[in-house]
Amino acid sequence: MAAYLPARIGQPVAEIDTPSLVIDLDAFERNLEALPRSIAGRDLRVRAHAKTHKCPEIAQRQIRAGAIGVCCQKVAEAEAMVEGGVGDVLVANQVVGASKLERLARLARRAKIGVCVDDAGNIEAIAAAAHAAGVTLDVYVEVDVGARRCGVAPGEPVAELARKLKASSSLRFAGLQAYQGAAQHIRSVEQRRAAIGKAAEAVRASRAALAASGIDCPIVTGAGSGSYLYELETGAWNEIQPGSYIFMDADYAKNEWAAPQHRFEHALFVLATVMSRAIPGHAVLDAGLKASSVDSGPPAVWRMPGVHCTRVSDEHAVLASDAGAAEPRLGQKLLLVPGHCDPTVNLHDWYVCVRGGMDQGAVEVLWPITARGAVY
Amino acid sequence: MAAYLPARIGQPVAEIDTPSLVIDLDAFERNLEALPRSIAGRDLRVRAHAKTHKCPEIAQRQIRAGAIGVCCQKVAEAEAMVEGGVGDVLVANQVVGASKLERLARLARRAKIGVCVDDAGNIEAIAAAAHAAGVTLDVYVEVDVGARRCGVAPGEPVAELARKLKASSSLRFAGLQAYQGAAQHIRSVEQRRAAIGKAAEAVRASRAALAASGIDCPIVTGAGSGSYLYELETGAWNEIQPGSYIFMDADYAKNEWAAPQHRFEHALFVLATVMSRAIPGHAVLDAGLKASSVDSGPPAVWRMPGVHCTRVSDEHAVLASDAGAAEPRLGQKLLLVPGHCDPTVNLHDWYVCVRGGMDQGAVEVLWPITARGAVY
Repeated sequence: MAAYLPARIGQPVAEIDTPSLVIDLDAFERNLEALPRSIAGRDLRVRAHAKTHKCPEIAQRQIRAGAIGVCCQKVAEAEAMVEGGVGDVLVANQVVGASKLERLARLARRAKIGVCVDDAGNIEAIAAAAHAAGVTLDVYVEVDVGARRCGVAPGEPVAELARKLKASSSLRFAGLQAYQGAAQHIRSVEQRRAAIGKAAEAVRASRAALAASGIDCPIVTGAGSGSYLYELETGAWNEIQPGSYIFMDADYAKNEWAAPQHRFEHALFVLATVMSRAIPGHAVLDAGLKASSVDSGPPAVWRMPGVHCTRVSDEHAVLASDAGAAEPRLGQKLLLVPGHCDPTVNLHDWYVCVRGGMDQGAVEVLWPITARGAVY
Repeated sequence: MAAYLPARIGQPVAEIDTPSLVIDLDAFERNLEALPRSIAGRDLRVRAHAKTHKCPEIAQRQIRAGAIGVCCQKVAEAEAMVEGGVGDVLVANQVVGASKLERLARLARRAKIGVCVDDAGNIEAIAAAAHAAGVTLDVYVEVDVGARRCGVAPGEPVAELARKLKASSSLRFAGLQAYQGAAQHIRSVEQRRAAIGKAAEAVRASRAALAASGIDCPIVTGAGSGSYLYELETGAWNEIQPGSYIFMDADYAKNEWAAPQHRFEHALFVLATVMSRAIPGHAVLDAGLKASSVDSGPPAVWRMPGVHCTRVSDEHAVLASDAGAAEPRLGQKLLLVPGHCDPTVNLHDWYVCVRGGMDQGAVEVLWPITARGAVY
């Protein structure tokens, strides 16, 4: 479907085809600038997470705003980023399997490439792939700092893998991957800060074990849009990996935010059309599960107080209006704020980028989502 | 990503890249044949639902197995089907907006095209588009038979729209779209049959109102994989629209089935690799929300008793093993049965089709999912 263009340059928002993924460029650019401003004067590198947007056009803008490069989760995403001109990419994830490692190593001929490990056997496979390709890869030991997904336990298990990395001629021990993913959507600031405080203890224990083995730890990387201000407070990280800050989503909007001046704006929307008003009391949109991911709840209806999304099925979303609220009319186009931006972006082939606000603005540019479906 | 091929012809299953969408061709072909067998000798047309598979290769096989054509939900899906050689396509949904209707009408120059309506103003817009394109469109009045999504109320509201259609020179009143989507996953046979019984009453009331206006109703179309045997029992439908029967999914597998000989087989899998075993007691797969839709629950682990998927995030699924059950090893490839096949298919670009079973078989062919992302 990538060949079908849902909009033309200069069109007003109301003429964009639906369901489309629309960026409010003004809000997006404010978010782009707000992140570096929120950490100004701190010794902290930004490695923007490209799994949110999957688009080199956006990665380039993050780098111009000060990011040192990007991270992503899959070799195929890294390939799309390097192809799009990004020179420094960390696959912030384990990569397992000979064909994937061969592709990863080949990519290191064209760009600075990093990868994470949490298994000694996997280190041997990565070293073999790097050796065969004649490259050196940056390798980060992933430490479980509370998310309970990937990563070895803090402390000596980290040092054990680092020693193995130090012994390899084709691998460079680059530091720790320490991402507390489970903390990002803890609603209260106090509890989120506490979770990151525990993660910082895990980082410190791991650094101590490395020091006991005489191993320097250049980089501690991690932190997401929901928590990075707390990682910053602890002083335990020197690189952060925020992704969602450029767009925000309905789930992040439910978080309590400590510093309102650092709260990012909704800049990503699904534009949808009311396609049925046959049943009294509800309106049906043409944007269902194939337009907006519901793993973090249904999308929110943008600036229509009292109008709620009550059901989402494959091709439809059903809206209900509170008493006295607006009743959307057949053919009307509405904006939805996706429940979760990353998997929603993964459903679309194009960003339709609007300048001048979502009410009066017009299409300025379309960006292809080149790493959509890049799961390999 | 469509250019990246996750498998090569002749490869064993264990060499297919992950996460990939894999069809067990033998099971798929048994499902293809089981459907017409289950309605043999009945005066019932099959219009297979292509929104499940989004692939003309599969549509052609359904037609060879006896289907009169396909239905789908979006104009862009209909375009992909016609482009793929399907000659009879019903958009079993409302189409709203001038540009979509223009595309729909243009398509009717190349194939027999139908569409649904539940609004008088929409009929005027469709008639104008058909007139402008110089075509005649089949139009079905959608009646709400209990799903409470789109469709007018049964009886006189149906006749009112049908009279309007009969008055248009560019539209042909083709019958009723009467799909009880909410019944498909009612677990008990008794309650599912009762819901379809109520839907049949709504169809009969609508036919009576049409008859009172002197309007013949050639086709009553509807019914899905979970309910079509009950629509058949009522005698109120003469066309069925099953889609999921070719693949089945974990959600359908939870239904109670009246006739075990008509129970379809799992033929669609997500092949995934164990990419982390660092945390004791669980295994992490490389297939998350971008590989398997979770709107109907997490995927099921295929033929590994006691191993369950406990969490799914963007790029990962976490498995836990019951005491005594197998502990998947790092690098091992496992098969998942998606919770919901339609939105899972929509995440992928290719079907990797395996012949000879999922244990010993090999890749026979890859089919492109040409209507993936065809939401417009």
